[in-house]
Amino acid sequence: MKTTRIILYGIHPVEEALLASRRKIIRIYVSNRKSSRIAKIVDRSESSRIPVQTISVDRLGSLAGTDAHQGVGAQVEGFPFSDPGQFISANDSGLVLVLDGLMDPRNVGALIRTALCVGVTGVIFPKDRSVSVTPAVSMASAGALEHICLARVTNISGILKQLKSTGVWVAGLDPSAEQSIFEADLSCPLALVVGSEEKGIRPLVKKNCDFLVSIPQQGRVDSLNVSVAGAVALYEAFRQRQAITAKTSHR
Amino acid sequence: MKTTRIILYGIHPVEEALLASRRKIIRIYVSNRKSSRIAKIVDRSESSRIPVQTISVDRLGSLAGTDAHQGVGAQVEGFPFSDPGQFISANDSGLVLVLDGLMDPRNVGALIRTALCVGVTGVIFPKDRSVSVTPAVSMASAGALEHICLARVTNISGILKQLKSTGVWVAGLDPSAEQSIFEADLSCPLALVVGSEEKGIRPLVKKNCDFLVSIPQQGRVDSLNVSVAGAVALYEAFRQRQAITAKTSHR
Repeated sequence: MKTTRIILYGIHPVEEALLASRRKIIRIYVSNRKSSRIAKIVDRSESSRIPVQTISVDRLGSLAGTDAHQGVGAQVEGFPFSDPGQFISANDSGLVLVLDGLMDPRNVGALIRTALCVGVTGVIFPKDRSVSVTPAVSMASAGALEHICLARVTNISGILKQLKSTGVWVAGLDPSAEQSIFEADLSCPLALVVGSEEKGIRPLVKKNCDFLVSIPQQGRVDSLNVSVAGAVALYEAFRQRQAITAKTSHR
Repeated sequence: MKTTRIILYGIHPVEEALLASRRKIIRIYVSNRKSSRIAKIVDRSESSRIPVQTISVDRLGSLAGTDAHQGVGAQVEGFPFSDPGQFISANDSGLVLVLDGLMDPRNVGALIRTALCVGVTGVIFPKDRSVSVTPAVSMASAGALEHICLARVTNISGILKQLKSTGVWVAGLDPSAEQSIFEADLSCPLALVVGSEEKGIRPLVKKNCDFLVSIPQQGRVDSLNVSVAGAVALYEAFRQRQAITAKTSHR
């Protein structure tokens, strides 16, 4: 199986893959046993009977395809994708993040990290015209990828229609939207769509949004980085939900 | 003068340096005149009588010290630092960002970009134990650096004391703070302190904060990336200020 050739790299991704126990770890590679965090990884692996192999820095670099491995790698099976149906049957306060064709693994990783922090139900991701769920994404997410529920779909518009039919509201993040994230109600069951770095949300996907929201801006530079814009919107949804919970608990 | 050897690189930084007209541009280097955005840069430079020199991609790479130059560079004078006194005499709604020892130019660039978007009065930055204001920071800020007011100080604690004496509140972003950004009043004249990637805010600087705030989190990964955490806090301050302005204008 080709998928077993995937090499996660970096302390956070390997640590979190071990903790999450979601994908099978075939082998751990270390090039530096002196680091206390790597020693912990070795201990945990050995107690889980995962083989640990010491190799040279260069060999690890060539296996990982990058020098940014921090002295540790893990040969793992493919990412355990979720069924998007899971997200659709989400409870009332469900929050889903939809990534429409992002190309930079750092942006995708950063968004997944933030999504995990705000407790999203899941992340939806197109199969084509998008970065894949690579070890670089896991690295950029500081290992958050290993914990998040992520569904890969061929048709984003189709899944948005399905979400809407179950009472989820679909909001698209669009710099030209008149309504700001602070004016919109983001406390409802919500799917937040974030578009690509260059082109934003694709026209057909935008058409399937219930409403569009923008991040208000002063100053002259055109726009926020997509991972920052997504984070600010996710946290505004989180804040609005918290405010409602606080009100309810004071009744 | 050694400072004239600085080579800004990338479309955004060069474009924004031309638009901002804050630092002297000695010469523009291009390796690709076919790009329409670079053609615009060439036009603008020529009408401002800035010499434009066509060089090879490799030569530009070696001048810029990186391959990430996107076909354009600018030989510029040093960054025009501001006097922090300017920020202190800020108006009532002033918002200052203080970066306490960040090391990654991408994080600093991202924070400067967000700071410009929310309209901060200025950014304060330590002279030592911190990344410098390099072309890499301008690139990571998508050129926002060329517009922002930035002061470099030797003593962060000293400047915080000065800010406090003029009625500015100093809030430190700290993951262990009990009070969240959503609970705190961030609509007052405010200096927001963001600490380094590894160690957070230094103890002495923390001591000089009036209060500490955290970003609430669910999920199991420890913490947000510092540039995302800073962005979420800056936008919460922005939201609270907007809400007050909206109330006032409805009176």
